[in-house]
Amino acid sequence: MLFRKDKGGRKMKIQLDCLPCLLRQALAAARLADAAADVPARILDRVLPLLADYRQYRCPPDLFRAIQQVIRELTGCADPYAAVKRQDIQAAQRILPQLQRFLAEKGNSLAWALRIAAIGNILDSAVYESVDLGSCLERELSQAFAIFDLDVFQSRLQDAGNLLIIGDNAGEAVLDQVLIANLAPREVTYALRSQPASNDATLADARTAGLDSCARLISSGCPAPGIILTDCRAEFLDIFRRADLVISKGQGNYEGLSGTGIQREVFCLLKAKCPVIARAFAVQLDSYIFQLQTWHSG
Amino acid sequence: MLFRKDKGGRKMKIQLDCLPCLLRQALAAARLADAAADVPARILDRVLPLLADYRQYRCPPDLFRAIQQVIRELTGCADPYAAVKRQDIQAAQRILPQLQRFLAEKGNSLAWALRIAAIGNILDSAVYESVDLGSCLERELSQAFAIFDLDVFQSRLQDAGNLLIIGDNAGEAVLDQVLIANLAPREVTYALRSQPASNDATLADARTAGLDSCARLISSGCPAPGIILTDCRAEFLDIFRRADLVISKGQGNYEGLSGTGIQREVFCLLKAKCPVIARAFAVQLDSYIFQLQTWHSG
Repeated sequence: MLFRKDKGGRKMKIQLDCLPCLLRQALAAARLADAAADVPARILDRVLPLLADYRQYRCPPDLFRAIQQVIRELTGCADPYAAVKRQDIQAAQRILPQLQRFLAEKGNSLAWALRIAAIGNILDSAVYESVDLGSCLERELSQAFAIFDLDVFQSRLQDAGNLLIIGDNAGEAVLDQVLIANLAPREVTYALRSQPASNDATLADARTAGLDSCARLISSGCPAPGIILTDCRAEFLDIFRRADLVISKGQGNYEGLSGTGIQREVFCLLKAKCPVIARAFAVQLDSYIFQLQTWHSG
Repeated sequence: MLFRKDKGGRKMKIQLDCLPCLLRQALAAARLADAAADVPARILDRVLPLLADYRQYRCPPDLFRAIQQVIRELTGCADPYAAVKRQDIQAAQRILPQLQRFLAEKGNSLAWALRIAAIGNILDSAVYESVDLGSCLERELSQAFAIFDLDVFQSRLQDAGNLLIIGDNAGEAVLDQVLIANLAPREVTYALRSQPASNDATLADARTAGLDSCARLISSGCPAPGIILTDCRAEFLDIFRRADLVISKGQGNYEGLSGTGIQREVFCLLKAKCPVIARAFAVQLDSYIFQLQTWHSG
């Protein structure tokens, strides 16, 4: 059975520390949607009661989905991060050839391909005010993973004919091409948000990122900035269930998956960009993580 | 007339960006007051409605005063930052001799004394997670002021027999001794919070910091972490009105003063530790500022 009641496993309910962060992200998204003087204030007037109700939400992406809905209603803007995503995709595309050459020099090792895919995770304008990926590339590449379940991944990979990657930020999707190429000839399905969610990649963003040339793109059906299985389409759930291997990218997907009592192996590839996630993995803030998760439901 | 209605001048009402920051500070203070699992959550249950009502408060310190009241009611802890303040005072006392020697080497110049007093402003545990003052001292000392009204201060100082300094953080009070010594033989009055407010210095903290040996210490009567004149005692207001020169230290005092339609010259000495303050002074984040403010009421 794939879904069970929340009996065991590690859950990522909304922590108190998430509230100031969600409020900050709400304000940033509100201003991107409509910077007119009174609009962000009117949006916060409706967001603050949502925050006060935080216990009603399953995980941070679930609450942020409700915040996005308020922004959409009050501004008519369905995709506040559209321009930011375009910039992030372009920035990632500029450094892609450099990273492909770098990987070739490293003998196309799987370890380095995973590292490059993880580095894409810093293209997160919702967390960082501004990221100049080019300038911090060397530092990020030299940072070892705090948790790196490479051996078990390689052993699972031997028998795997197909993989599912659950995508995260739009810019990150560009760099995921390096990992997907490295996983060939296995068939890779890449899942996207069903509608704009923070700066995460939608189907359209993934095409702009050039991902349709190397993976089968599908919409998960989930509109939150983090995959919540109970909100997903049957087609996605079927792929999720049957995939030989699943890689979940980023904090939002980890938060969503860990809140919904699933029982299957998922490799989580992310950078711990906030203290809540760092605590959950017992790593230092800003650590890179590649960890096999199995949420047992007891 | 000292007080007028809010007609002119620059006001520091609560900005939207203040709300996530106040929520984060409320959570930190709540945990310091009582870390028991459910207490910080119960505190936030009462703080979130206060934030939603932010327009009712005159300035950020005014809202934080209300937050402190909730924390005090739910935990019985009147001074969540007591231990933090002790540590900050000790840290500042350790580096004080070094700074005194440094100033002597600089010929006891007023400019460097002001710089040292400004550097104390980074001893702000409410803003920074942790500050190792010793290690960042050299970098901070080498940073030029973005705004430095030294000439006008020196000219005003020629005719000044007495000064009022409105104090800020507890650790900072230690380093203010360097400035006070430099202002001798003028008489210096140093105003403190009337009760614990964030990590700001109270009368007791100022005595621990050793300030009673070089200044006349008084309580302002204001319990907020930033001076709000309409909440102050008559004795303080009299000194504020008659002082030949007033120096206001830190962001909170600036926010409080600029919200209450005063009309007198005040030299504001602070580090712009947040984007809202940096924007108000049109400086880069983390800039040092020493600026003569005159809030005219039109």
